[in-house]
Amino acid sequence: MCKGTLFVVSAPSGAGKTSLVKALRKGMDGFTVSVSHTTRAPRPGEKDGRDYRFVDRAEFERMIAAGEFLEHARVFDNHYGTARATVEAALEQGGDVLLEIDWQGARQVRTLLPDSVSVFILPPSLAALEQRLTGRGQDDPGTIARRMGDAISEMSHYGEYDYLVVNDDFAVALRELRAIVIAHRMRRARQAERHRDLIAGLLKAS
Amino acid sequence: MCKGTLFVVSAPSGAGKTSLVKALRKGMDGFTVSVSHTTRAPRPGEKDGRDYRFVDRAEFERMIAAGEFLEHARVFDNHYGTARATVEAALEQGGDVLLEIDWQGARQVRTLLPDSVSVFILPPSLAALEQRLTGRGQDDPGTIARRMGDAISEMSHYGEYDYLVVNDDFAVALRELRAIVIAHRMRRARQAERHRDLIAGLLKAS
Repeated sequence: MCKGTLFVVSAPSGAGKTSLVKALRKGMDGFTVSVSHTTRAPRPGEKDGRDYRFVDRAEFERMIAAGEFLEHARVFDNHYGTARATVEAALEQGGDVLLEIDWQGARQVRTLLPDSVSVFILPPSLAALEQRLTGRGQDDPGTIARRMGDAISEMSHYGEYDYLVVNDDFAVALRELRAIVIAHRMRRARQAERHRDLIAGLLKAS
Repeated sequence: MCKGTLFVVSAPSGAGKTSLVKALRKGMDGFTVSVSHTTRAPRPGEKDGRDYRFVDRAEFERMIAAGEFLEHARVFDNHYGTARATVEAALEQGGDVLLEIDWQGARQVRTLLPDSVSVFILPPSLAALEQRLTGRGQDDPGTIARRMGDAISEMSHYGEYDYLVVNDDFAVALRELRAIVIAHRMRRARQAERHRDLIAGLLKAS
């Protein structure tokens, strides 16, 4: 079985990452969804094991201590993490896994799985970013300034990524993101494994 | 200026390389055509500097001795070569260069320009390859057997390439080849150079 690739995608809020990744997954086969662990309570309609693996704080901390997370982060009072076993099982079965995480998570993943491939998505201009972060004009200036600060802090790590995609035209950015995934599927080691019988047959003819 | 990428494409005859590369160039901007040097005589309508750089045997040998070729090969009594200066000038100006050469040329290029990216195209089956090499059924069995031998000898080097593309469905193979080119254009170093002003503007906002 040919091993899949772990793709990590990061971006500042307002760069359109979520829409791009959603469209990418929709238009391509071969991705295995990695269900995250979280300490937050399930919301109505959420199912354990499908939306998240809901665990309590003690279990989450045991997993951290045991090194069971590929990456984990706290968002306000809740913890979120990607279990290494979940991702590795998917990759072993030949699926690609795509994680949408921030630069700190990306850095953790890069350390543990150096074969992972990371993509950073940039907004097309400062004005576009500001516009998207301003929301519907109902937020106070302090909130907007904090959002901008967070975005800039995230963007300052673009240099740690393998690829950069500028989301100016959505369709173009989607094509570029898709090209990165396809290209990694074409890498020799993976293709040689996938087409092992074909290659053996072609060379046996001699 | 952001530096371009040198792509090297090899395949056994009968794998459809020429058609694929032609379609790739036609559907994408950003390639600079690298004009080869040759010792063969110009054919009617061929123009020096456009189709080839026509040089005599002595000049060709001087260039070999001076290490001026990225790769060179003899086909029957004629010599063909890619001048390193030609390719490097194109890359420096930001163009991608695509060379269709055999495994021996690819190996020479890889040694001299380790940043080059190599793609090997495989036929979808032995039967398809045989069919394409049999031609119109007018060749004698010895000729066909020699072609098969050459194809197998070429294919035995697939393991030296960065990417493998199987040309089963032409449109799919073309999309895969194009994805490899696009993905390399998205690599961080190249994108950071191309979007230097954007990135400076985004980060300056802090």
